[in-house]
Amino acid sequence: MDKENLKKLKKKVFDANIKLAGSGLIISTFGNVSGIDREVQVMAIKPSGIPYSGMKVDDMVLVSLSGEKIEEESPNPSSDTDTHLELYRNFTGIGGVTHTHSGYATAFAQAKKAIPCLGTTHADYFYGPVPVSEVIEDRCIKDDYELETGKLIVRTFKNRDYRNMNACLVACHSPFTWGEGPDDSVESAIMLEYIAKLAYRSISLEGTVEDIKKTLLDKHYRRKHGKDAYYGQK
Amino acid sequence: MDKENLKKLKKKVFDANIKLAGSGLIISTFGNVSGIDREVQVMAIKPSGIPYSGMKVDDMVLVSLSGEKIEEESPNPSSDTDTHLELYRNFTGIGGVTHTHSGYATAFAQAKKAIPCLGTTHADYFYGPVPVSEVIEDRCIKDDYELETGKLIVRTFKNRDYRNMNACLVACHSPFTWGEGPDDSVESAIMLEYIAKLAYRSISLEGTVEDIKKTLLDKHYRRKHGKDAYYGQK
Amino acid sequence: MDKENLKKLKKKVFDANIKLAGSGLIISTFGNVSGIDREVQVMAIKPSGIPYSGMKVDDMVLVSLSGEKIEEESPNPSSDTDTHLELYRNFTGIGGVTHTHSGYATAFAQAKKAIPCLGTTHADYFYGPVPVSEVIEDRCIKDDYELETGKLIVRTFKNRDYRNMNACLVACHSPFTWGEGPDDSVESAIMLEYIAKLAYRSISLEGTVEDIKKTLLDKHYRRKHGKDAYYGQK
Amino acid sequence: MDKENLKKLKKKVFDANIKLAGSGLIISTFGNVSGIDREVQVMAIKPSGIPYSGMKVDDMVLVSLSGEKIEEESPNPSSDTDTHLELYRNFTGIGGVTHTHSGYATAFAQAKKAIPCLGTTHADYFYGPVPVSEVIEDRCIKDDYELETGKLIVRTFKNRDYRNMNACLVACHSPFTWGEGPDDSVESAIMLEYIAKLAYRSISLEGTVEDIKKTLLDKHYRRKHGKDAYYGQK
Repeated sequence: MDKENLKKLKKKVFDANIKLAGSGLIISTFGNVSGIDREVQVMAIKPSGIPYSGMKVDDMVLVSLSGEKIEEESPNPSSDTDTHLELYRNFTGIGGVTHTHSGYATAFAQAKKAIPCLGTTHADYFYGPVPVSEVIEDRCIKDDYELETGKLIVRTFKNRDYRNMNACLVACHSPFTWGEGPDDSVESAIMLEYIAKLAYRSISLEGTVEDIKKTLLDKHYRRKHGKDAYYGQK
Repeated sequence: MDKENLKKLKKKVFDANIKLAGSGLIISTFGNVSGIDREVQVMAIKPSGIPYSGMKVDDMVLVSLSGEKIEEESPNPSSDTDTHLELYRNFTGIGGVTHTHSGYATAFAQAKKAIPCLGTTHADYFYGPVPVSEVIEDRCIKDDYELETGKLIVRTFKNRDYRNMNACLVACHSPFTWGEGPDDSVESAIMLEYIAKLAYRSISLEGTVEDIKKTLLDKHYRRKHGKDAYYGQK
Repeated sequence: MDKENLKKLKKKVFDANIKLAGSGLIISTFGNVSGIDREVQVMAIKPSGIPYSGMKVDDMVLVSLSGEKIEEESPNPSSDTDTHLELYRNFTGIGGVTHTHSGYATAFAQAKKAIPCLGTTHADYFYGPVPVSEVIEDRCIKDDYELETGKLIVRTFKNRDYRNMNACLVACHSPFTWGEGPDDSVESAIMLEYIAKLAYRSISLEGTVEDIKKTLLDKHYRRKHGKDAYYGQK
Repeated sequence: MDKENLKKLKKKVFDANIKLAGSGLIISTFGNVSGIDREVQVMAIKPSGIPYSGMKVDDMVLVSLSGEKIEEESPNPSSDTDTHLELYRNFTGIGGVTHTHSGYATAFAQAKKAIPCLGTTHADYFYGPVPVSEVIEDRCIKDDYELETGKLIVRTFKNRDYRNMNACLVACHSPFTWGEGPDDSVESAIMLEYIAKLAYRSISLEGTVEDIKKTLLDKHYRRKHGKDAYYGQK
């Protein structure tokens, strides 16, 4: 493998973790970002339980798609490593994954509720309600818990397209987001938290609020995404 | 056209966008402020999808009242340009428009609820409940969506006076505010968010709360506005 | 009158206004603090509608107890001046008054609800529920509105002791607090906002929550106040 | 007693109090942290009613397990001293105690509600719902109030293990947390506030939400605690 490329991967993943730490979404050592080099099938991920403040680029842990550490001297990878790997194995177009316990998105996950699509802010980023998984089964908790958490997310996307819905709430747990690279997955985590906050407040005002209609959802999502997008300078 | 005046307009609009970025109302590249020079009928507006951090005065885009770019080398104007223009064409006394997705005002927009006038803080700035538009019709979403959004706001003000109500919530979307100049429209956006927050909390405490009575509304609005105002140093 | 003492009074009132501005309770030019020199019966108060940022000690306006400006060249005093004066005339033991539109206390005022005494944090500072006034009558809005607002507060305290309850919510408006000096009245405003926030959240969790029992209220209030207090270093 | 060790204890307790002050959980002079040297049975605790800003290491007050001041010239210890001591006497494995009036945990205490265990964030730190005490009896308020508050917490833990539940809400009052040392007890206070915030929001979304199932609780608690823990770098 090309050492230079792996170094670049580590740097990207490090930068994304630092961005996450500065986003206000993180408390203590919670949260982690990973990225993958699809050519060599190597993932870099935050080490487990290490404070963001003292972290260095070289602390990022390189892991193969099947979970082996690439560099023996690395610290332990995030305890959520197997969840990340399962997402990379199944969502083959993604290049980065972010996991947080951010305050509003997690509140929805704990309430076992999808985040309804109540406005165009939501529609600008996520194509419809952000789904919530089933509660994980007991047998999955006992064996390979983190791997099974990944499988649970993949199952939740059986009839969904991971390319227009960059996020999943794991019931009783918290959100995972993804994107083209590590940085994009952090962006998705930030936007997810914001639209969760908006939805929380709208629901407080109304009890139940219906999703926006499909035409409006389509308009806003496609204004920013896909071949007919006209937002920005492209 | 006088180049000096257009430069001044760009500077005013730039300053107002920077103020908005520092107000805490904005996340990511959301939000935009425009201003108009009524003499030459030229609007300046934030470019589309450009981060606030690197933005320069000269990035502000000059557009005619009918929507043509004045300087060919300009970046693309905000994707909400046609909404701004429709407001300038109809609310002929205004000189600045601000659009945000601010957290509390947008929660009301998503709940399709006007912001009731529950106290004198509200009455100091907005003369009665801040209206919410109808949900935009499907045909308006398909053709000229941003222009139709402007028309929707104008229709919402058919029997209202845009001079004592500087704000409109677009249902399932978010707020637009306006004022004498770009800076005033940002001030309105900031106050709108604050009174939305107050109303949100009062409603949480009560379920439903009635608007304040007309005499109190009149007193406070007129203490700060119009010929009998006695607040401040004028 | 002793010029030196009036200068000291201005300085105290200025410092308290700056403290208020830095407390997070204030938005825009809202809010004002006053203080009184009981010997010469002169009040100093923030000028009307002037931003906190550029404000100078000498901008504080000196006013007699009956409302005349002492120094002709002063800016206009706060538009709430007559409310402050009415409180000084009736609550003869107080030396400072603070007025804010702080986010949680105002939410209670807008909901026309007293802040129930739900815990010892509240009991440490306010002896029982913080009262809310009646809604001001129409005739009082039309004539001498600010004076009548003061009278409304005084009426709310007809059977209450202003010495163990340093705060009043004016219905549909916002809170006034007071204390031995200007600085103490700001402290009261800060604590009022905090216990309003706690109560807001407890009520959200329960719908209705009862006040704490009298023995607990007495214990905590008297731990910090009066002859048997044993909190602190005195 | 070894002067060097007591100095170290003071330093640890001082550092933990400063950490608490910087955590955003504290307003005014509220809150206090203590630590104990189990060998010599001496506790160090924050002095009563002294601002965090000017506080020095030497202001920490040394007290014997039965409540006598060790150094005569010390300031008065926290008025909550007897509560801390009662916890050290009964929870013999702990080395630090923190008391706060933090905004969300206190809201649950005021609502007289335990914090339900709604997600894995909670399960990572606290093994099940965080209990709330009974409301303190009148006779306990009158005599030795702070000691009785300690006894109330101890009684609440009659059938609970203080080693896997580092926190207790005192009804109508606020939380106490503990840990191996002063710093750990502050960490517990910070995590308690965070999971209280998450629970508050989940409850707002649902009315009532059930606790997570035992298998998931076990998995997460044991991922971070005890002999089979695999989180972090140990």
